[in-house]
Amino acid sequence: MNVESVQRVSIPPPQPFFMSLKYNLKETFFPDDPFKHFNNQTPLKRLLLTLQYFFPIFQWAPHYTFNFLKSDIISGITIATLAIPQGISYAKLANLPPILGLYSSFIPPMVYAMMGSSKDLAVGTMAVGSLLMASMLASVVNPNQNPKLFLHLAFTATFFAGLFQALFGLFRLGLIVDFLSHAAIVGFMGGAATVVCLQQLKSILGLQHFTHHSDILSVMRSVFTQTHEWRWESAILGCCFILFLMATRYFIGELKKGLNPPSIRDLVFVSPYMTTAIKTGLITGIIGLAATVGRSFAIFKNYHIDGNKEMIAFGTMNIVGSFTSCYITSGPFSRTAVNYNAGCKTAASNIVMAVAVMLTLLFLTPLFYYTPLVVLASILVSAMLGLIDYEAAIHLWKIDKFDFLVCISSYIGVVFGSIEIGLVIAVGISVLRVLLFVARPKTFVQGNIPNSGVYRNVEQYPNANHIPGILILEIGAPIYFANASYLRERITRWINEEEDRIKAIGNSNTNLQYVIMDMTAVANIDTSGISMLEELNNIFGRRGLQLVLVNPRSEVMKKLNKAKFLDEIGHSWIYLTVEEAVGACNFFLDTCKPIHTKDESEGGSNV
Amino acid sequence: MNVESVQRVSIPPPQPFFMSLKYNLKETFFPDDPFKHFNNQTPLKRLLLTLQYFFPIFQWAPHYTFNFLKSDIISGITIATLAIPQGISYAKLANLPPILGLYSSFIPPMVYAMMGSSKDLAVGTMAVGSLLMASMLASVVNPNQNPKLFLHLAFTATFFAGLFQALFGLFRLGLIVDFLSHAAIVGFMGGAATVVCLQQLKSILGLQHFTHHSDILSVMRSVFTQTHEWRWESAILGCCFILFLMATRYFIGELKKGLNPPSIRDLVFVSPYMTTAIKTGLITGIIGLAATVGRSFAIFKNYHIDGNKEMIAFGTMNIVGSFTSCYITSGPFSRTAVNYNAGCKTAASNIVMAVAVMLTLLFLTPLFYYTPLVVLASILVSAMLGLIDYEAAIHLWKIDKFDFLVCISSYIGVVFGSIEIGLVIAVGISVLRVLLFVARPKTFVQGNIPNSGVYRNVEQYPNANHIPGILILEIGAPIYFANASYLRERITRWINEEEDRIKAIGNSNTNLQYVIMDMTAVANIDTSGISMLEELNNIFGRRGLQLVLVNPRSEVMKKLNKAKFLDEIGHSWIYLTVEEAVGACNFFLDTCKPIHTKDESEGGSNV
Repeated sequence: MNVESVQRVSIPPPQPFFMSLKYNLKETFFPDDPFKHFNNQTPLKRLLLTLQYFFPIFQWAPHYTFNFLKSDIISGITIATLAIPQGISYAKLANLPPILGLYSSFIPPMVYAMMGSSKDLAVGTMAVGSLLMASMLASVVNPNQNPKLFLHLAFTATFFAGLFQALFGLFRLGLIVDFLSHAAIVGFMGGAATVVCLQQLKSILGLQHFTHHSDILSVMRSVFTQTHEWRWESAILGCCFILFLMATRYFIGELKKGLNPPSIRDLVFVSPYMTTAIKTGLITGIIGLAATVGRSFAIFKNYHIDGNKEMIAFGTMNIVGSFTSCYITSGPFSRTAVNYNAGCKTAASNIVMAVAVMLTLLFLTPLFYYTPLVVLASILVSAMLGLIDYEAAIHLWKIDKFDFLVCISSYIGVVFGSIEIGLVIAVGISVLRVLLFVARPKTFVQGNIPNSGVYRNVEQYPNANHIPGILILEIGAPIYFANASYLRERITRWINEEEDRIKAIGNSNTNLQYVIMDMTAVANIDTSGISMLEELNNIFGRRGLQLVLVNPRSEVMKKLNKAKFLDEIGHSWIYLTVEEAVGACNFFLDTCKPIHTKDESEGGSNV
Repeated sequence: MNVESVQRVSIPPPQPFFMSLKYNLKETFFPDDPFKHFNNQTPLKRLLLTLQYFFPIFQWAPHYTFNFLKSDIISGITIATLAIPQGISYAKLANLPPILGLYSSFIPPMVYAMMGSSKDLAVGTMAVGSLLMASMLASVVNPNQNPKLFLHLAFTATFFAGLFQALFGLFRLGLIVDFLSHAAIVGFMGGAATVVCLQQLKSILGLQHFTHHSDILSVMRSVFTQTHEWRWESAILGCCFILFLMATRYFIGELKKGLNPPSIRDLVFVSPYMTTAIKTGLITGIIGLAATVGRSFAIFKNYHIDGNKEMIAFGTMNIVGSFTSCYITSGPFSRTAVNYNAGCKTAASNIVMAVAVMLTLLFLTPLFYYTPLVVLASILVSAMLGLIDYEAAIHLWKIDKFDFLVCISSYIGVVFGSIEIGLVIAVGISVLRVLLFVARPKTFVQGNIPNSGVYRNVEQYPNANHIPGILILEIGAPIYFANASYLRERITRWINEEEDRIKAIGNSNTNLQYVIMDMTAVANIDTSGISMLEELNNIFGRRGLQLVLVNPRSEVMKKLNKAKFLDEIGHSWIYLTVEEAVGACNFFLDTCKPIHTKDESEGGSNV
């Protein structure tokens, strides 16, 4: 064979199993190489680095300046003014005593300030997490009939949320959160916000009885079966809304002076309730991580955040919180954005906020005793309306219809079903998309771009030319069990279509003789995939076709070699580029007309 | 810019949403284009084609020859001699009356002969399906205490299995079966065979009481807590095994003369049992489809089988079976291989087998009355030992460690847990692998292969050269929500490492200025992926780097254009090949030294 080739596709040398396992595990769980700085250090220095890794405060505190302090005080007080009314509202949303919202804005931000690596994140309770916790716990305990048990379950769920978050971080499972797509979160948050707004109908209409379900049908039934209760108030509401806002005053419950009481002995670890607490903790924990926007802000300011380490910080924050009468906290977007815009410089703004809340708890709580429910409701509604991001939904529709489907399905799931149903639908559809991509990979026919040695998809480049007698196929995904049957069918169909095309042209000189498979995008192959290639090669042999591989990856080469498939097709039929492969095929087409048919008896080596 | 380019990467014209939806649905569900022949036909011809599509017998019967008949009679009688003892054994395995095994070898093969498209498949009951049905139904009904209800539930489960199979076929959901990988099936079948062999300890040791669980621990406990029962028989077994085989005779129950009685009125559609029947039907139905080997044999003989249509045939066969006292049937490997080796020519061999079984049912059943249980047990054990395919497991270990993991996990799951657990583990790990592939795609640095314009992964081709000032990255998977965060981290790390490398060399002339991303393997992108690219581009802008894209697919180009990302990086920074992109970068590196830094205020367009 005198076709010149610049470089052969070599078979990589065998690698010890444990070395390649170690490499793969490292790439899967430590893609950002977080311990890079630990290399070549003294043990003492390593200890210090470890301390700084888990408590970044030791990293930034020594360099803290007076200018930083000024900025952090301003932003800290700004977010405190937001944290106090929102804290109270969200705690009501979670069917918990309002004071818990304040407790949760005191201890957790302190913990985060020491352990978190984001400079912009503002810690606090979140509307969606509150709602989720309320709806999940209400399935086992009625918050009105047994408020104490409900409260203790909330602490327990918070404890488990923190535990799961910390464990995810320790075991580098940040990728669990990656499976909540942006589209899913947009739909989910929008749905949750809609549900929160609907729940406020209770306060706004002044209803005494209200459903514990969150779906729109139950809420509407609650509202419209009690028309006798709201008709006249609704009339007032319609006539003189502002007067109503000022005049109507309900108690919001007792706000006790004093800091967080310990709650570590309130955690419930007994059988009938614990599973609910674990489930609630797991889901609210994941939602808390997904809602966290520290990383997005870090990108704006161009510094690095280790997502897995942040999870450990969040986990610790919630575990400590569950011991000190706090419920689930996170770094919600709205508050973090305010913190960012107010010019925060370090996590110290969280300490300032915590101190402000502490002072409130010590001296100012009685002032909140007469806060009208309607005011809280309007705080919630206005915060929630910002979460219904219809513009993002329109953007999704324009760019990616499937993402829009994910978004709208999770919205509908939340509004008409429940928060949990919405979440399951969103994750389910997103995962389905990934599976479908692998199960139904794109295959393309390539042609030669005129006046070049470049071969590209003929659909995308209509001026690319077919090469007579040669079919160039491009496989767009790894060849796995999930797509092996599909690819066999699809490739056979490509060949049939090509033969039909040649027949239609009527030029019998250029019978199809070579099938070139461009393996550039085939990142990996498994044993089902290799069996499929063997079957294809048998079919090709019977039809008088020669299979040619182009640019197989080292991983693929290694496996094809071990499976003896390279011997089957012949080592010389593997090329680095499509151009070289076409050159070799053309050389044979020109010199020796019919190629040898492969031995039939080779078939059937596997099932 | 005077860098010459043979072809620009064009933005594909917008396509109406419903057209692209139709195209995608067709590629997902009709990849083999089964209705190709229906185009341009008269309505009458179409009706005939439809009839032939659903009943292939109308296709082959007119061309049936006497020679075919001779071959089919020989192979049909051969498989009948296998079907009768196996049928009886498998029915015992399913805790059903032995005669059901014969009934199931009569009607279903008849149905398949009319509707199936495989020429080699031999229909019959299968060991794994029988065991699975027994273990799943036993969780609600004890077969010894209530044998009649158990029997009726088996019919009901068979009915649902058929229904699901037919529905999967009608809705072209063959891809569900694709998610059972070859490795999973090897491990699962091996585990099931081990369990079946263990169950035979009851017959071989002559135990009266035996566990209804299938896991190895329960079986061993059953065996060893009854040592007083088996010790002396075991001694005999050890001393004169053959004598024992001949001498020991137990009844196998009454075998009634006569053909299948109707069972359509026995189906149980009442509440407490129906859900179990549906679940059992769904799982045994899928296992039945996965165990079917018609397609593999079709490949040997080089004819085409439409997998989805086969599912309709199997579904109909099981639905009809459930109406005529049959339980779940499939096309098991062992019997099909015998049929193939006996030289069958068409599905008529199934008819011959059915007739032979019919004659047995009418005249010969009393002969089986005294069949020793030990004989049945040894039939089962010898059939099962063939299913423990340890060679395939070694092959998996050699070629693909992950496939081996799937195989061994499902084996252990079946043997130590239950058939269902093994199945869930096998599918779970297989799906996890697909998800991990997408969540952690490979990225590579490319270098120039000496004396060519070809750029390839520097790890695979160690002689490939880095280009000063340019980093060429190759992304190995579609950019989806599941890997967007990962890719951002990993690409940033590549850039940091490259900058460290340049620093280590100490040649400050060649600062990194261009990052070329080869998008050849990026089959698709979603909105999270586009956000990631936007963030990366912002980071690059701040670090004075220019992003260059190479060979984006039409799908990717379309979305990047809609999201205005092409405007952000500049339309001129997209090239067809890495060679052209490097040429353009080198042109700028040579002429105008420092490139412009991007405007900082552009950051933060999305969250």
